[in-house]
Amino acid sequence: MPSQGMHTVGIDLGGSKIAVALANRDGQLLQHAEIPTQAADGPDRVIERMVDAARKVMSAAGVQERDIVGVGVGAPGPLNPHTGMVLGPPNLPGWDSIALRERMQESLALPVVIENDANAAAIAECRLGAGQGAQNMLYVTVSTGIGGGVIMDGCVRHGASGLAAEIGHIVVDAHGPLCNCGNRGCLETLASGTAILRLAEERLGQSWGAREVGEAATAGNSVAAALLDEVYQWLGVGLVNAVQLLDPSVIVVGGGVAQLGRPMFDAIQKALDGNLFRAGSPRIRVEPAALGTKAGVIGAALLPLQ
Amino acid sequence: MPSQGMHTVGIDLGGSKIAVALANRDGQLLQHAEIPTQAADGPDRVIERMVDAARKVMSAAGVQERDIVGVGVGAPGPLNPHTGMVLGPPNLPGWDSIALRERMQESLALPVVIENDANAAAIAECRLGAGQGAQNMLYVTVSTGIGGGVIMDGCVRHGASGLAAEIGHIVVDAHGPLCNCGNRGCLETLASGTAILRLAEERLGQSWGAREVGEAATAGNSVAAALLDEVYQWLGVGLVNAVQLLDPSVIVVGGGVAQLGRPMFDAIQKALDGNLFRAGSPRIRVEPAALGTKAGVIGAALLPLQ
Repeated sequence: MPSQGMHTVGIDLGGSKIAVALANRDGQLLQHAEIPTQAADGPDRVIERMVDAARKVMSAAGVQERDIVGVGVGAPGPLNPHTGMVLGPPNLPGWDSIALRERMQESLALPVVIENDANAAAIAECRLGAGQGAQNMLYVTVSTGIGGGVIMDGCVRHGASGLAAEIGHIVVDAHGPLCNCGNRGCLETLASGTAILRLAEERLGQSWGAREVGEAATAGNSVAAALLDEVYQWLGVGLVNAVQLLDPSVIVVGGGVAQLGRPMFDAIQKALDGNLFRAGSPRIRVEPAALGTKAGVIGAALLPLQ
Repeated sequence: MPSQGMHTVGIDLGGSKIAVALANRDGQLLQHAEIPTQAADGPDRVIERMVDAARKVMSAAGVQERDIVGVGVGAPGPLNPHTGMVLGPPNLPGWDSIALRERMQESLALPVVIENDANAAAIAECRLGAGQGAQNMLYVTVSTGIGGGVIMDGCVRHGASGLAAEIGHIVVDAHGPLCNCGNRGCLETLASGTAILRLAEERLGQSWGAREVGEAATAGNSVAAALLDEVYQWLGVGLVNAVQLLDPSVIVVGGGVAQLGRPMFDAIQKALDGNLFRAGSPRIRVEPAALGTKAGVIGAALLPLQ
């Protein structure tokens, strides 16, 4: 029988699926399950599904409520970790002002911590992944959009409103494409998976995502290669900006677009190494995320222990 | 007779002058003096002058070494607050790798803390100035260059190498003018006092600084007004970027260029308010620095108490 308060439950709420896990105090997953979010059903039904799934991983492991320190939930931003409110993520229709922490706490009768999904992944990568041991780390996820989480002096820093490290919405080209945030030339408009898709349509006449464009570039398609070079340059500019403000010792890059691999990481590393402002300071390492798609649920499971 | 450990000495080392003060534990200045830096004499002589000046403010107040908690020094970056090394600030010739903390400690036989001058000013404004009470504050100084200091969760955050909050060297226009840091379109190349001087020469044929350009704009010179609008817009872009990564509740702006006053603050506030990404989150206030040119020495005096 597991002893009291030795476990946590982590829940990674995504737009298409929910990952739920039971973990020990070291963040090792003892039980893991994935269910579809069915986001169109709205928050009430999705929250019920999360609660049910949490109970299921506990009972599958023979663990009682009293064995659980708490439940951590990683959810898409914007959200406020201080108040526990989810504030209308684009991929969760109807979640405009949902007291997720309170509602989960009532249903499960357990302490619940909620956190932006990128911050949860940042915690996981910093504790157990590619940023292990770093006191100052930036985690960036390049996927449909671009998000991030920042660890400074050993802790996730949220800022005043829980909106720190939103690297996808820094402006890198004031004359660039209009972003749905209202500004022009946000990094997300120039270097996300969505941006690659748009550029592939414009320049290659193909509905290709990052993977297909990468394959075409490798196979010798020079338009595809030039397109990716441009994307890598923007990522470099964005990360140089993030470095000037956050000064991490390591940057961990995850998300689907990071699967482009070595050429992307080499280009970003080159942009960072070319930043003469930091001449004389230690080199900043850029590393691929190590925990893959499980970073979110591992980070969520670590939340109640922070 | 003042009681033991009730005071601190603050020293603000600048390129042209050194401010030295004796302060009480609340950061109130009991003695204050300014001497020329005479930077051309090199680090040995400048450090001697700082040590002498520290002794003088102590003796003028009838305070002994045993009454001093410690000495705080604000110095131009780049420097490393962890190691106490000054790493070659552009306006201090010969300070390429100077163990400032160690040398001051040996001479004064007192604990010494060194800090980037913008961080020292940030501490002062956050404790006693325009950012009083904020747990998350960004201080920006717009002067010859553009620097900054960031408070997150109540403490100055240095980053891994003491180079966090270097807002002057974020890229806001990747096609912009070449910066001496090696990148193009750094905020400093577009919105600093130096940038205004360059633009005034190019567009007005005058060697005017921010004050003169501001006066001309007020007097109806439309070229001067347009020039400043452009500068304010770049400041807005730079601060929006800083907000996306650091999420402060208040931004305090100091430095000579901030004397342009209301039109500048209104333009920056408008840029921040127009950032739809933060719709639903509390408005970020932009405030003029309240402590004027003394922020640096007050912040330095607060350092040993942090």
